[in-house]
Amino acid sequence: MQNDLLLKALNHEIVPRPPIWLMRQAGRYLPEYQKIRSQVSFLDLCNNPELAVEVSLQPYNRFNTDAVIVFSDILLPAQKMGLELEFTDDGPRINNLISNESDIKKLTIPLANEDTYPTLTAINLLKKEIGEKVPIIGFSGAPWTLFCYMTEGYSSSNFNKAKKFLHSNPQASHQLLNKITNALFLYLTMQVNSGAHVLQIFDTWAGILSLEDYKTFALPYLKHLISDLMPLKVPIILYTNNSHHLLPKISMLKVAALSLDWRCDLQEVRDNFGTTIGLQGNLDPTILLTDETIVREKTKNMIQSVKNWQTGYICNLGHGVLPSTPVENVHAMVDTAFEFANEPVFV
Amino acid sequence: MQNDLLLKALNHEIVPRPPIWLMRQAGRYLPEYQKIRSQVSFLDLCNNPELAVEVSLQPYNRFNTDAVIVFSDILLPAQKMGLELEFTDDGPRINNLISNESDIKKLTIPLANEDTYPTLTAINLLKKEIGEKVPIIGFSGAPWTLFCYMTEGYSSSNFNKAKKFLHSNPQASHQLLNKITNALFLYLTMQVNSGAHVLQIFDTWAGILSLEDYKTFALPYLKHLISDLMPLKVPIILYTNNSHHLLPKISMLKVAALSLDWRCDLQEVRDNFGTTIGLQGNLDPTILLTDETIVREKTKNMIQSVKNWQTGYICNLGHGVLPSTPVENVHAMVDTAFEFANEPVFV
Repeated sequence: MQNDLLLKALNHEIVPRPPIWLMRQAGRYLPEYQKIRSQVSFLDLCNNPELAVEVSLQPYNRFNTDAVIVFSDILLPAQKMGLELEFTDDGPRINNLISNESDIKKLTIPLANEDTYPTLTAINLLKKEIGEKVPIIGFSGAPWTLFCYMTEGYSSSNFNKAKKFLHSNPQASHQLLNKITNALFLYLTMQVNSGAHVLQIFDTWAGILSLEDYKTFALPYLKHLISDLMPLKVPIILYTNNSHHLLPKISMLKVAALSLDWRCDLQEVRDNFGTTIGLQGNLDPTILLTDETIVREKTKNMIQSVKNWQTGYICNLGHGVLPSTPVENVHAMVDTAFEFANEPVFV
Repeated sequence: MQNDLLLKALNHEIVPRPPIWLMRQAGRYLPEYQKIRSQVSFLDLCNNPELAVEVSLQPYNRFNTDAVIVFSDILLPAQKMGLELEFTDDGPRINNLISNESDIKKLTIPLANEDTYPTLTAINLLKKEIGEKVPIIGFSGAPWTLFCYMTEGYSSSNFNKAKKFLHSNPQASHQLLNKITNALFLYLTMQVNSGAHVLQIFDTWAGILSLEDYKTFALPYLKHLISDLMPLKVPIILYTNNSHHLLPKISMLKVAALSLDWRCDLQEVRDNFGTTIGLQGNLDPTILLTDETIVREKTKNMIQSVKNWQTGYICNLGHGVLPSTPVENVHAMVDTAFEFANEPVFV
């Protein structure tokens, strides 16, 4: 592979500069993305492999990112399991919520193939088109994060309905989490079979749980999923948003790297939980709403804050690129990481 | 005072059971509150001392809570400083946002008197009516939390606009924070003069900041405010939502107690940051959406998790009571705290 910086960093090999890619690097802030979206709905875009490939490559073509993540959405497996999913201007919406055990029983665990998941075809096409140049990242949501949407129906700042379900029906919750985990295992396995070099699992809503509830309802399913995926020998990155209070647990998971948000100090995580822990992150995405000078300074500070960024560190945001982000600021962030190649290396 | 349990706990005296009150204990989940709100708007209710007193007393009359918090809203000072505030079904909305230095210059620091702040009259009336029986809590938002609303305009899960302003205009941000702090100092001082026995400062949005940004933009103003209020000799409780990553800093503040959310383990906070630290909290408010058995069990576990709950501990939620909370669950929580009086005490 021409540019295997990401794979090297995930393998803790020494790199001349930190690899960089950005969560939601293909998205609404890019005019070329908007152009395609003006012709096709979000869901149709996810389910059209050729268009998904085109959109996935847009940030690579523009910025030369060190990875291409397949364009898709974490909620597609919920749809394939039997829920009615739509994307409105306000975000995703599931119309037939899970509200009891009988709803859970009705959910299917779909076979993961190209008919069910056009994303697999997209990964396959990406692999052919770009797989020799740069790693392709496949992904899914974490079981708990999918649980949130399936029981709440849409993005919420607190997911009160989801947590009410969890606390009122712990047994049914375990059944649902188990079913989601099985579906995700099949889906992620097929992503690797289709050509993904790396998997990222997004636990966007883990941070709303107490550590105790995380240990009961999120962690066991993550462990299960990660351990079942281990034989595929593909590095796994676990993204956990708002994760500071969960660090003692997530740092024990057998993943190649933890993708963290800006509430965590990267070096402190290494100091407290192991100096060789793989890390990804963690610039506050609102920094990218400012200007190039500020973006450059904050990106440089972030990279330098990791004492040994030469091993096991991947430059990224702490959450996805925001839709109102100026393109030149993304450029400034990516270029700042690139320029570390010219810095003297002390290892 | 007939029931001074709260004051004793804040003063680290030994109590036979933890005092209990709940954030947003007067609110939409109470039918008697709904009855009044059906006749008067939220803002009119805040600004009508007689009605505000009636609503403030509702949870005391129903549950016998160990404190009465005056009914008001953290955004009133923003209005008095010159912003157009309204409360819609979606929550508060400020129509003329702060977006540059000239907007900040236009803000006034209002004199805090009963004409400007009817809440002061409400506190005065509460003091006469109930002040011999139970402590009255006055409150305000923290400077950073008011900054969030003044620059964003409404509740947002990420306050992207507020953070963009902060990162793009650090100097103007300091000017605004300074002005807010001065206004809050006058307001809180007058709350004490009007009869408040305790002050609570709500930093609802501190948790969206990195520790570094918190140290720069939130902490100095809190320190300033707390130190200026010190001569009043009134205990201050600081509520910080989503505060786990901020604990090393907030635990150093000279307040009587920290009010924390459910992401923090109360005993761990004492173990890590001082065994005599005053604590308030921290049940996840979604627990109150379940049933009485679960509420009782979780409340009991929470209290027992604090090894030395007999000193410096106040039972509360980790955030406000949710509107859809069944009244009987609040009863179950309060009664569970009361029943600790019958437990054998080992100090």
